[in-house]
Amino acid sequence: MTVKIACIQMEPIVGDKAGNIEKSLAHIHEAADAGAQLIVLPELCNSGYVFESKEETRALAEPVPGGETVAAWAQAAAERDLHIVAGINEIDGDDLFNSAVAIGPQGYLGTFRKVHLWNQENAFFTPGDRGFPVFDTPLGRIGALICYDGWFPESYRECALQGADIVCVPTNWVPINGQDENRKAMANILTMAAAHSNSVFVACADRVGTERGQPFIGQSLIVSYTGWPIGGPASPTDEQIVYADVDLDDPARRSAWNEYNQNPLGDRRPPEYQSAR
Amino acid sequence: MTVKIACIQMEPIVGDKAGNIEKSLAHIHEAADAGAQLIVLPELCNSGYVFESKEETRALAEPVPGGETVAAWAQAAAERDLHIVAGINEIDGDDLFNSAVAIGPQGYLGTFRKVHLWNQENAFFTPGDRGFPVFDTPLGRIGALICYDGWFPESYRECALQGADIVCVPTNWVPINGQDENRKAMANILTMAAAHSNSVFVACADRVGTERGQPFIGQSLIVSYTGWPIGGPASPTDEQIVYADVDLDDPARRSAWNEYNQNPLGDRRPPEYQSAR
Repeated sequence: MTVKIACIQMEPIVGDKAGNIEKSLAHIHEAADAGAQLIVLPELCNSGYVFESKEETRALAEPVPGGETVAAWAQAAAERDLHIVAGINEIDGDDLFNSAVAIGPQGYLGTFRKVHLWNQENAFFTPGDRGFPVFDTPLGRIGALICYDGWFPESYRECALQGADIVCVPTNWVPINGQDENRKAMANILTMAAAHSNSVFVACADRVGTERGQPFIGQSLIVSYTGWPIGGPASPTDEQIVYADVDLDDPARRSAWNEYNQNPLGDRRPPEYQSAR
Repeated sequence: MTVKIACIQMEPIVGDKAGNIEKSLAHIHEAADAGAQLIVLPELCNSGYVFESKEETRALAEPVPGGETVAAWAQAAAERDLHIVAGINEIDGDDLFNSAVAIGPQGYLGTFRKVHLWNQENAFFTPGDRGFPVFDTPLGRIGALICYDGWFPESYRECALQGADIVCVPTNWVPINGQDENRKAMANILTMAAAHSNSVFVACADRVGTERGQPFIGQSLIVSYTGWPIGGPASPTDEQIVYADVDLDDPARRSAWNEYNQNPLGDRRPPEYQSAR
């Protein structure tokens, strides 16, 4: 089965939740028009990212799946026969979560809550404590992680060990030390290494623009299970949709790498990973 | 403290153990002349790699540290005040190991035995079962892994969680699917991601040449803890020594990435890595 993935690189405006939902829907319909079946949207794409206070964060949050953003995305998913994995500002009781919601044509599928919070997110959000769920869908098994989670190879391993075919990464990548425009973004390097080491497709949807002084780097990409990009990297600055067709039935993906080895997922030796525990 | 690292990219000749030792010593002395303090040599650089039988493998093996190769390297290390991490064909009782020996000016420091064997190595060698030891030296804490071990992010994590400053990688990288000469070697990508994710320096010494039909890809490199190469990648085909000066006292290496985060080593959340165990 071939799945057409679209990663929507967009610029949310912090605080303008209605406008962000509207913009996301326009991009979703454009991607659907192009034949996309699985659509990935950036981290916190309904709220913006650089909050000034917990109160502002809370005012832009909603229950998942009970809120207006999931309702709007679910309607689009139903109308256009889509699967969507999108970053959302979630409230659950007193806790706020930096989450990714998974939605199918029949509605809500599940939520991933960011495990590794970055910088001031720690002041506003509660870290996820549900590990890395993987969702069974007609488009394969879909895992999710968010931005800084990708700096932890453990995040991808958790998804892959549960049989994820595609890992979706809503993200808001920021510039890092040592990065310059002549070098492939380190976030892209980490993504390629993770895809290759886990024989898993990875689809990263980043945001662009500068929000309250914080720039974001774009460069959304879709990486094959081989580790090589098959869509993007996108522009560092502009809104753009990155597409790739991925063949989940590619026999090479899950076949042994040689007569003696499976691949770096099947050849793991956990008893040897205890030196430092 | 600044440490000058040299990765010696060389072409061993399978079966010519005396010649390989002699060649390695010539390169070691050249690197020492250039001021190198820590020298990394390729995987199985004293024996060659593509064995035709277990008998041939055994005939080229030696006890570590009791054999002739370690004696020769230890003498050079003593004479030139060097630390050396080098791939060696080790015999211990009935078992053969694809090992890396660590040697200092005062002699033998320890052995790492390759944990993840690649392809026909499985027919000749016993997989290592001592995890990933890290050696305390005057040049910092030095870890080691070998070639296919680098496809497992767990290998680097094990070294880094034990406080490794520098991970030395004797390797015999072979071409992989999807690789072409216009793309940075996936082995290099994996190395960069590991260095960045673990805030650790990584020094990879690969071999070159084609042995009994098996080509090797060279491209030895030294990567900063930031993830960016600071030496190499070397030629894909020619013998070459790659040098880099690494500053173990660089305060940025172990300082927090921001007010809320340590780095991807200190911010790990092991309870969330249990989904698939």
